[in-house]
Amino acid sequence: MHPSAPPVTAAALVIGNEILSGKVEEANVAALARALRGTGVLLRRVVVVMDEVDAIAAEVRALSSTHDWLFTSGGVGPTHDDVTVEAVAKAFGVAVVSAPSLEAMLRAHYGQECTEGHLRMALVPEGASLEVTEEITWPTIRLRNTWLLPGIPEVFRMKLPVVLARLGDTGRAFVSHAAYLQLDEGVVKPGLDRVVADFPDVSVGSYPKWHATDYRTKITFDGRDEARTLAARDAFVASLAAGDVVRLD
Amino acid sequence: MHPSAPPVTAAALVIGNEILSGKVEEANVAALARALRGTGVLLRRVVVVMDEVDAIAAEVRALSSTHDWLFTSGGVGPTHDDVTVEAVAKAFGVAVVSAPSLEAMLRAHYGQECTEGHLRMALVPEGASLEVTEEITWPTIRLRNTWLLPGIPEVFRMKLPVVLARLGDTGRAFVSHAAYLQLDEGVVKPGLDRVVADFPDVSVGSYPKWHATDYRTKITFDGRDEARTLAARDAFVASLAAGDVVRLD
Repeated sequence: MHPSAPPVTAAALVIGNEILSGKVEEANVAALARALRGTGVLLRRVVVVMDEVDAIAAEVRALSSTHDWLFTSGGVGPTHDDVTVEAVAKAFGVAVVSAPSLEAMLRAHYGQECTEGHLRMALVPEGASLEVTEEITWPTIRLRNTWLLPGIPEVFRMKLPVVLARLGDTGRAFVSHAAYLQLDEGVVKPGLDRVVADFPDVSVGSYPKWHATDYRTKITFDGRDEARTLAARDAFVASLAAGDVVRLD
Repeated sequence: MHPSAPPVTAAALVIGNEILSGKVEEANVAALARALRGTGVLLRRVVVVMDEVDAIAAEVRALSSTHDWLFTSGGVGPTHDDVTVEAVAKAFGVAVVSAPSLEAMLRAHYGQECTEGHLRMALVPEGASLEVTEEITWPTIRLRNTWLLPGIPEVFRMKLPVVLARLGDTGRAFVSHAAYLQLDEGVVKPGLDRVVADFPDVSVGSYPKWHATDYRTKITFDGRDEARTLAARDAFVASLAAGDVVRLD
């Protein structure tokens, strides 16, 4: 597809009182963002909400209808605070049902010790797909454009290859370049503004470093056309004295 | 105030393409959450959006009107991608003006090297308060219930004491207790459900640990009444065998 075609978009919904209380640091969004970028999907919005069915359901409705894909993180275990399946079902107006294949896998896994609690993990929104790959055979739940991913960071990461296999490669992966400078933001602004105006197809970011030792400002150039993205960076660098540039990426 | 009074609520709005692209890990929400909890304010919702004036303005309107306090993180520097001041002004229908006291501080700080870019950092939404404490004299911008905090983690943290000084202590700080178990979630669910039902004023969370060495599940008990929160934890622990409990917090 042509690089100027609008990108496929995604949103993430992080579910969990433990994130909003600061007891646990959110650790999945950046991994998701990087995985999506590699396949050309733009993560446009992230929302973090508490473990409340109605709040989650409202957010699932809003985000899934305004983005190509929605990824939820958290709330898919067996306990009372795991309400994501119920909330996603509510958002799409479907029932919660037990998936026979998941139930069989849970019974095989837990054997004699399998409890009602464990079997709650077989519950899915009616109509959900159970997504697997040849390597990752424990199913990941997807209902239409909404993926239900677990909050535990190690397990969340294990699921990403399943997501990527299903999304496919859009052939429009994002490319990034950067210039690291010994100048502060206020000084580089005029040169930066020119490049921003000349390269509307390249997203330019400016990030000062606090207590910097090696550089003071990092300027990033992101786009879906390698040549244009590099040209933007190089046009900007040409506006500076050689000694101001620490290194280029 | 009585512990059963509804808590003061807050939302956070994180602004930045660099977070949504996964190039930078978000590092301010957890620090804000912990600071707010200590003073009895409940962070209920976090949203992350791109550097787009209209998207930010819409979110500021929505979050500031549904929470007691709103904290924005990011987008307050001098470059083209710093659009938070403009967006907050738009959200509240006020102009962007240069604050004379900020402009004087910037001119004093940068001296001869002060540029138009630097002076952009004197821009504030009209009617904004410039909040300081005796120790932290560089102003923090607040418009009504909305605080504009910088995205750089070190600077964000420097501003938190200013926020807390202004919010005051609600006298209803949250207290947390926990039990660490050698059991999995599916097994503890019945005992947990009973405590959840018996202590509606205590928020109970259950968090499995993946590849756990010291414990398998952490059960948390959060409330604003120390005695009730401890009682919930102890009622739950009484439902277990002594060997199942690794430790208590």
